[in-house]
This record gives sequence, structure tokens and C-alpha cells, in this order.
Amino acid sequence: MKLYDFALSPSPRRVRMFLAEKGVTVETVQVQLREGENHGEAFRKVNPGRFVPALELDDGTVLCEAPAICRYFEALHPDPPLMGRDPKEQGEIAMWERWADVNGFMAVADALRNSAERFKDRALVGKVDHAQIPALAERGRTRAEHFLHDLDERLGKSEWVGGAAFSVADITAFVTIGFCAMIELEVPGNLKNLKRWHDAMSARPSANA
Amino acid sequence: MKLYDFALSPSPRRVRMFLAEKGVTVETVQVQLREGENHGEAFRKVNPGRFVPALELDDGTVLCEAPAICRYFEALHPDPPLMGRDPKEQGEIAMWERWADVNGFMAVADALRNSAERFKDRALVGKVDHAQIPALAERGRTRAEHFLHDLDERLGKSEWVGGAAFSVADITAFVTIGFCAMIELEVPGNLKNLKRWHDAMSARPSANA
Repeated sequence: MKLYDFALSPSPRRVRMFLAEKGVTVETVQVQLREGENHGEAFRKVNPGRFVPALELDDGTVLCEAPAICRYFEALHPDPPLMGRDPKEQGEIAMWERWADVNGFMAVADALRNSAERFKDRALVGKVDHAQIPALAERGRTRAEHFLHDLDERLGKSEWVGGAAFSVADITAFVTIGFCAMIELEVPGNLKNLKRWHDAMSARPSANA
Repeated sequence: MKLYDFALSPSPRRVRMFLAEKGVTVETVQVQLREGENHGEAFRKVNPGRFVPALELDDGTVLCEAPAICRYFEALHPDPPLMGRDPKEQGEIAMWERWADVNGFMAVADALRNSAERFKDRALVGKVDHAQIPALAERGRTRAEHFLHDLDERLGKSEWVGGAAFSVADITAFVTIGFCAMIELEVPGNLKNLKRWHDAMSARPSANA
């Protein structure tokens, strides 16, 4: 199998960190997003949605989007479990992972793609062009700021984002923090719980993935 | 356990259909969203995000959001499987469920919540108020139209949304079609594949959930 990737992009980083935590190595192909390679005919045959990550299986099936690719690897390599061991853990981790994705990751993406010159007319990933909406960039930034505070609050009650164990929810939240740099949003220094967790995350080998 | 629900709302309907397909019955509590009961102190203790569905477990844990609640029940009651049997099926269903959620369900929500008078200053679900963005309502409607065509194309290649078997991806897409009525968006009559599938979905007992 082959993982279509782009080293500077936060979405495929979610998969790279997940694989590093699993101890799984996969052949990767860099798709040069900044040169528009994802819009070219060759890559559109792999993923008509024109985004990475995309995982091509040996039978030609292509899985797109970080959560779907992670789900595949969770089933293929159950140890260590990163999506919960029992029904309750699975539900809680799914909830917190989605929370970080929708309220963190997607908020930063709204802020970036609706303001940066390089995403003009590409305010959304996908087959179709969409114009930027300045008010949505502003809302995204506000939501990202709220997310950082809410994450700090969560980490004041729980060691890891998804509960007592490290999980995919930590990966999504951690990649979101890195993504914040692309909109020049810094983590406020008074968020002590977030800092404790971020230091622990940064010390994991997967942080370099 | 108790499922906090609102009969007229599409998000909890995703859970109700999922439970009907599993043959599982859960005690439900109606939260009167149109009367603002979700903003009241009592419900905010259950879910500070102020939305349904929310599932309260017997130990007091609350799981929020349809995908997380469905994941919990998938683990608790694996038969019939609605999220795939093997790694590849699990990955494909996760991909198509997310596709329907982000490009269908969330697009309709953008269109509705950024235009309807009753969602003034509540353009997003959550603890924080957000003003409506008219351009986002318009974009949501355009995306919902694209979603219907893309769904028709997908169903020209696959019997069910997620592949050869009925799955949670069908539920999300089907609930999205119903949700389209709230923005007065009708399915174009020439989408024959979508019609074939929608007729099959409507004939399932879970369609009444």
C-alpha cells in the first residue's frame, strides 16, 4: 500500500503520528500541494477530492481522510489501541476526537483557507472551487481561541484528551496546536494544563512524524 | 442509560435509526429545543454544549454527538455490524460516513443555521453564540446541491453508500436528505440512482425512527 502525503500539511500529519504510535511503516508518496500537484490529472485519478492524506491499498481501493485511514489501521493493527478498548472508551474517544476535529482543526482550517492568498477560491478542500468568506475566517480564529481554552479546561480534568489513556484524540488536538501556527495563533502562556500535556506530547517520538 | 433526544431534530435521528437497525431500545428523554430547554440549567449540566443527542450512561458518563454514540453501540452490540466487518470495510465506511457528514449534513446545517430567524446568533451549536453569516448560508446550500449529485454518482457505482453492505453511512446520508427539507431543497427528479436507494431506505422500518 501507499500513503499519499505532504510533509508540511497538518491533515496527513494526523496519519503519520498515528502510524508512528502504532509502530507501523508505510511507503509514502509526497504530493506537492504548494505546486498544485493535487490538482493535476494523475493525482485526481487517485483522489478526485484532490486532497491528502489518501491511502491506496494493494487492490486499488483508496481510503481518503485522516479519520478513515486511522480507523483502517486501528482494525489492522489493534495494538496499542488508540481508539479505546471497551465500548465506553471507544465512545468517549470518538466524542473527544470529533470535538477536537470539528471545533479545533476545522476552525483553524476555516481561518486559514478563508484568508490566505494561496487559498483564494479554494476556501474548501474538494472538487469544486469556493470563494473565501472573510467573516468565516474571523469566526474560525475566534473559535480556535475558544478551543485552546476549552482544551486547557478538559486537560485540567483528564490526563489525556480522550480520558485516562493516550488516544487518537490527543493526536488530533496536538496537530491542531501545530496548525495554529499557520494562522499565527499562539497558545496563551496561562494555560497550564494544556502546557503540561503539550510537553508530554512533544516528548513522544511520534511528535516528529 | 438515557438518550436525550428531540423528535424533530436530524442529529438525534441518526442515533434513533442506528438503534432501530440494531434492534436496541433505549429510554429517551425529549429535550424541547424549540422552547430553548437545551439552554436551561438542567440540560446544561448534562451537556454543556447544549445539543442533542446526548447519551447518559448508568455511571454518569455522558457521550455527545451522533457518531460517538453510534460507535458506543456498535461496540456494545456488534450484530448486525453497521461500521464494517474487516479493516477495509471499516475504513471505507468511515470514509463515506464522514463524507456524508461533512459535505452533506454540515452543509445543510450551515445553510439553515445561517439563515433561519430562529437561529439568529446561534449559527453554530455549542456553548458560545455566533452571528449568522449570510454568505455561509448560500455556500451551504450550493454544497448541499452538489452533495445530492455526488451521492447519485456514488450510488451509480455502489449499492449502498459505504459499499456492498448497508451501514451507518446510509443512515447519515438518508437523514441528510430529510434535513434538506428544512432548507426547502428538493432532490432533483433526474437523480435515478439516488431515487433507487432512497426508496430502499424508506422501506426499512428504521426510516420511521
